[in-house]
Amino acid sequence: MAEPFHCDFSGRIFLGHLGNQLLNAADFHSTDRGFGMRYLMGIQRSWVLSRLAIEMTEMPAQYERYTVETWVENALKFFTQRNFCVTGNNGRVYGYGRSVWAMIDTETRRPTDIYAIDNGAINQWIVADKPCPIERGGRVKISEHAEFVRDIEIQYNDIDINGHLNSVKYIEHVLDLWNVAWYRERQIKRFEIAYVAEAHQGDMLSFYREQTADNEYAVRMVKTDASAGNQVEVCRCKVVFN
Amino acid sequence: MAEPFHCDFSGRIFLGHLGNQLLNAADFHSTDRGFGMRYLMGIQRSWVLSRLAIEMTEMPAQYERYTVETWVENALKFFTQRNFCVTGNNGRVYGYGRSVWAMIDTETRRPTDIYAIDNGAINQWIVADKPCPIERGGRVKISEHAEFVRDIEIQYNDIDINGHLNSVKYIEHVLDLWNVAWYRERQIKRFEIAYVAEAHQGDMLSFYREQTADNEYAVRMVKTDASAGNQVEVCRCKVVFN
Repeated sequence: MAEPFHCDFSGRIFLGHLGNQLLNAADFHSTDRGFGMRYLMGIQRSWVLSRLAIEMTEMPAQYERYTVETWVENALKFFTQRNFCVTGNNGRVYGYGRSVWAMIDTETRRPTDIYAIDNGAINQWIVADKPCPIERGGRVKISEHAEFVRDIEIQYNDIDINGHLNSVKYIEHVLDLWNVAWYRERQIKRFEIAYVAEAHQGDMLSFYREQTADNEYAVRMVKTDASAGNQVEVCRCKVVFN
Repeated sequence: MAEPFHCDFSGRIFLGHLGNQLLNAADFHSTDRGFGMRYLMGIQRSWVLSRLAIEMTEMPAQYERYTVETWVENALKFFTQRNFCVTGNNGRVYGYGRSVWAMIDTETRRPTDIYAIDNGAINQWIVADKPCPIERGGRVKISEHAEFVRDIEIQYNDIDINGHLNSVKYIEHVLDLWNVAWYRERQIKRFEIAYVAEAHQGDMLSFYREQTADNEYAVRMVKTDASAGNQVEVCRCKVVFN
């Protein structure tokens, strides 16, 4: 259900909260098939979200019940693609999602072979022919002329169980680059994020934004490491409004 | 369920997300009894949360299922007290909540008579004898010597369907006054908030904090109105750690 405090001024669910439900669906789906985070933790492995794209024709409204369906479209050695479909009552489609996940060794933080888990069992769960009629996320281009928008410092509520900036908070901080007045005139049509690096409590995040087409913006998030002081890109996003 | 992205670095649910579930329980409970927000909207009335106190002995852990029970302890003309009990598996009690609500006229924004709704029907739902063994919220004292901690600007993701700072976000912003290192050493034992005024997109929030006893802090949140420029208190909190 689109809970009241998860809805924005317009009474529609925040994209961050919707994204959270997509990630929950991914977690529950993989857990049910023996590939879940809890199982992987026990064998020194973890899924790492690499890309997420969400494209919506409409957002669920306050109190509305909606369903997130998810399936694995394909899997290579180091990456798997997982798709989503968000539907409302009587199967009306609100939108779709696409995601790319890597599996890492939690000690070395290096990518590991997905097919090494349970003798390539992921193959059993691939649904190659189910349509997901939105574009894959591509490389987001952003030039050196992108405008600096703001700095924010990562706080306690931004940090997940791994001690990293929570995947959902990246989305919220990026969408906060526009204000309520902006969202009064436009809806988010498509949101795309490529997760590049982890960020931690105390890191300063700097946001750069560039208009790349009509109603289309690229955002670059950079962290300044609290100890070393050097700048590292942590994510790139593309946001398309309509 | 304590969802993964709703849990902090320690794997326990964030107090803000738990508070959200308390508010949901209040909403569902009152809706089921004909006093819900949706019904009230139609007759130009709304519940307004005035105070919330949460006292926990333990926080639900990631993936743990928990139950929020709620009941109305009493109702006066302008205020009603609603309590909460949070339990885990086999009825183990995690903690309790207390809240105070006013009913306002959504046009005048003035308090209105709760007993005028449906011929005083709220009386039917009062459970006066059910124990809620935590203190009521009292007036939070904070002196002029409170330390200024930081300013933050209210963003798109902070704003609820009424165009106001979301009740849950008050809690999150206050708890962000302490960092992960602090929470590594302590848990929140009790959190208490008195909502004083609404805040809006673009308002600047200033946070003042004062230690009032061992492990006990008072916080004052003040807004600087984006247009008028004057300062107004928006909430006061007490946070007790152990």
